[in-house]
Amino acid sequence: MDSISSKDNRILKQAAALKEKKYRDSLGMYLVEGPNFIRDAFLYGGRLRFIFTRAGALSAELEDIIRLAGKSGSAVYSLTDECFAKLSDSVSSQGIIGVAEKRQWSEDELFKEDGANVLVLDRVQDPGNLGTMLRTAEAMGFAGAVLMKGCCDVYGPKAARACAGSLFRLPLLFIGDEAEALELFRRRGKRLYAAVMDGELSCMDAELSQNAAIVIGNEGNGVSEGFIRAATGLRIPMAGSIESLNAAAASAMLMYEAYRQKLK
Amino acid sequence: MDSISSKDNRILKQAAALKEKKYRDSLGMYLVEGPNFIRDAFLYGGRLRFIFTRAGALSAELEDIIRLAGKSGSAVYSLTDECFAKLSDSVSSQGIIGVAEKRQWSEDELFKEDGANVLVLDRVQDPGNLGTMLRTAEAMGFAGAVLMKGCCDVYGPKAARACAGSLFRLPLLFIGDEAEALELFRRRGKRLYAAVMDGELSCMDAELSQNAAIVIGNEGNGVSEGFIRAATGLRIPMAGSIESLNAAAASAMLMYEAYRQKLK
Repeated sequence: MDSISSKDNRILKQAAALKEKKYRDSLGMYLVEGPNFIRDAFLYGGRLRFIFTRAGALSAELEDIIRLAGKSGSAVYSLTDECFAKLSDSVSSQGIIGVAEKRQWSEDELFKEDGANVLVLDRVQDPGNLGTMLRTAEAMGFAGAVLMKGCCDVYGPKAARACAGSLFRLPLLFIGDEAEALELFRRRGKRLYAAVMDGELSCMDAELSQNAAIVIGNEGNGVSEGFIRAATGLRIPMAGSIESLNAAAASAMLMYEAYRQKLK
Repeated sequence: MDSISSKDNRILKQAAALKEKKYRDSLGMYLVEGPNFIRDAFLYGGRLRFIFTRAGALSAELEDIIRLAGKSGSAVYSLTDECFAKLSDSVSSQGIIGVAEKRQWSEDELFKEDGANVLVLDRVQDPGNLGTMLRTAEAMGFAGAVLMKGCCDVYGPKAARACAGSLFRLPLLFIGDEAEALELFRRRGKRLYAAVMDGELSCMDAELSQNAAIVIGNEGNGVSEGFIRAATGLRIPMAGSIESLNAAAASAMLMYEAYRQKLK
């Protein structure tokens, strides 16, 4: 294992740049922190270009991961504490961080399963919400997600951590405008639903067991006008004086309902 | 309206101390930030001792709230930017923050509705999760929540913000140990369920429409042993290779399922 002890090391500087979205965009890579997340990358086809460990952090668990890295052709470096701190976002870091290549998913990969549901994220801004929604989507049997322009970066450290292994498994399409998304769903035979507080249809009465594309909107402003016009508004029945639900909680309920109908 | 321009002002210093849990505990008060949250306090019986506005932030909306404050007997102070910054947790502050008195709920208030479900939070650590769960509980018709010792502080700024108006409406009981909680649920005729990944019973097959006490555990370590032994393990059916769900998402699904059964 090679060592890096200079903060000016080129590989280290390039990896540290991935904390910023513009470099993640231009380099097509992102950071993956922690042993579980990195192991998921190896298990589920995430390609890791580099692995960095903090000198002194080595444990049986990390050595195990380094063995996996060796088999996968990932370059492994041991970093001084000071160098490692340039990479790690987390105060409670477990001493290992990887550089993963973004995976490009094709439209056919997203739609390969007949009748599958898809999640549509429309300018979701909170990285924790975004990652949680994608993890929930996989758990509730959704085939994948469409991320509209204006969502926060799924490859940012917080979103990626909330998404965890689903980031390597769940097909994601990035789409710039609503017209293109609407044409895609039409062509693929998906019915469009938008999660809105005063939606015309209760999710309990909607047919969500298959071929549903469910749009979750921005935390503050909800679903965009273009989707609202094209979609059936989906309401979650609620008790009490609640005016809105947390977006990740609301999307969890809708995807749960869809999966429940599918299993029934 | 009185003004405060000294950072050494006694009232300001006492209010600023409420950013720390130990002072929230000893003074029995907490901070409520933003016009919507403060309006909810006035609407739903939250008692606000003080209201602070940032000089220059005044808008029709804030003046409206100040009128409400006058009617409710809350003292209102205008603060210089520098003084206001000592109180506000938020960079995007809307220039108003209140000091609310914690409300004590009785056991009878929590259990006043026959057959109602209750949420039990067992060492939930993330304030955003905790607040989201309580808001979801109200929306899904739960009568209230039991917060076990070891949960993060529901009156901290982040948890309170995520909880929003539910903090003034949803009865909360704080309980120190499991034995006391188990005795309470037995006495009140509640069936205890614990959300666990490999639970023996699918939530879709469980009878959750009434009299359920559902325990949500710590984000990392799950439900404590004492509850596990006494409860029926409740599993959310899942697709894919997911190993765990976000705690707020999982609890949203379980409470949604309970409410769905109740409405059916």
